[in-house]
Amino acid sequence: MTRFADATGIVPLGEGRYRAELDEGFGFGAALNGGYLMATVMRAVVAESRHEHPVATAVNFLRPAGPGPAEIVVEQRKDGKTASMARATLVQDGKAILDAQVTTGTLDLEAVPVYCGPAPAMAPLEACQTSGRGSAERGFPARVDMRFDPAAMGWLDGRPTGRPEMRAYFRLAEHDDPDPYVLALALDALIPVVSNTGIYGWSPTVELTWHLRALPAPGWLTVHGTGRLVSDGWFDENVEIWDARGTLVAQSHQLARAARGR
Amino acid sequence: MTRFADATGIVPLGEGRYRAELDEGFGFGAALNGGYLMATVMRAVVAESRHEHPVATAVNFLRPAGPGPAEIVVEQRKDGKTASMARATLVQDGKAILDAQVTTGTLDLEAVPVYCGPAPAMAPLEACQTSGRGSAERGFPARVDMRFDPAAMGWLDGRPTGRPEMRAYFRLAEHDDPDPYVLALALDALIPVVSNTGIYGWSPTVELTWHLRALPAPGWLTVHGTGRLVSDGWFDENVEIWDARGTLVAQSHQLARAARGR
Repeated sequence: MTRFADATGIVPLGEGRYRAELDEGFGFGAALNGGYLMATVMRAVVAESRHEHPVATAVNFLRPAGPGPAEIVVEQRKDGKTASMARATLVQDGKAILDAQVTTGTLDLEAVPVYCGPAPAMAPLEACQTSGRGSAERGFPARVDMRFDPAAMGWLDGRPTGRPEMRAYFRLAEHDDPDPYVLALALDALIPVVSNTGIYGWSPTVELTWHLRALPAPGWLTVHGTGRLVSDGWFDENVEIWDARGTLVAQSHQLARAARGR
Repeated sequence: MTRFADATGIVPLGEGRYRAELDEGFGFGAALNGGYLMATVMRAVVAESRHEHPVATAVNFLRPAGPGPAEIVVEQRKDGKTASMARATLVQDGKAILDAQVTTGTLDLEAVPVYCGPAPAMAPLEACQTSGRGSAERGFPARVDMRFDPAAMGWLDGRPTGRPEMRAYFRLAEHDDPDPYVLALALDALIPVVSNTGIYGWSPTVELTWHLRALPAPGWLTVHGTGRLVSDGWFDENVEIWDARGTLVAQSHQLARAARGR
């Protein structure tokens, strides 16, 4: 079992309750990555559903979580042939960490799109760079392998592009084949897009919703982040993930707080 | 009081419960518009919050609602200085109609954007047309005044553009000044974007999340809908609303089922 599969593992306690052991390896400092928490909650919801694929997940981030034991409570709300729906909460030390609404369905692995928009432009993998952020020896940077498009990394040298954007190739350090849980991690793994508007620092996600559109093929994921409006201390970050076959597999939209410093 | 304000009105019953009287005037046939239901639920959440503005709302549509009495149950989940969070459910005849997660905050009416992306292209109002859909004498078409961009309306004559897209100017029939509740209605009021990929008919929303980015100025709203992927019976519909001042005021993202007929 790889570290990510182990770290997002859940143990059923009965009546829609699950135990998880949150892994400090998916944190920056004391706070764990939101995508990692989301992936763990999604596993519990799927375990309670007749459907295998978490097609829509909306999360309210109530407070940060730390490493250690936690519990997931799943409440089934609709059991449908096409789509089932649940509410779920991640609880740690008696406090709700996040609330989620998850819709599950069964995707057709052979589906041929009626329409797919063009993939955004991206530098080739060999032209991309690591983030230079954090130590790659422990915590989140050690668990993932990310290669950033240098065209959106000039902010490191004081030359932000002026537009909210960030792009990277993504895989887990242990090269697990991507699945919906890896996608949940990848879509919240980018350096905040507002770095390219000159806003640096901690940018907590308030609300994040994502849609699983297809199951990803093995290989690198391409993660494209953009934003439309940075105003009043709030910004949106919109991520598309394309797989190694060139299929659009995930779309996410989050509302986050901009760091105070500029 | 205008009909929309009256139709989304709520009466407190205590302990986070509210009564609503759902108005058949905001329906197509037997099913009420999802944006109308969302607006009614948002009013109850805001009534329970110290903040006035519903900045993020995520909805799972469990089943259709009809006209008549309904109840809203609000559960406060976080009471924060910057953002408060709640879960809410709309109940009719003892059945849950929709589940919502709503984040409320207090927007600064004088905020000057750090960054705003370019507004999408749109035909001038005088070049736009009514939908030709339904009778304008009763039901939803009588409650709203919408003028569609003719460049995305060729599907009416068997000439869809081939891309998921739909654009319209929007105001209420009674010309109420837009507010967050009117935005909730407007962002779910377009003819489905997949009409332009040759898919016609009932396209039920499964999950819809939207973010309120600024309070709208009086006047017409411009509603831009696009999609990125139509596949496997699912499509995404992404809407931006710009106000009469040219401010991006709302962003929504929904996952919906495509009608079977092509």
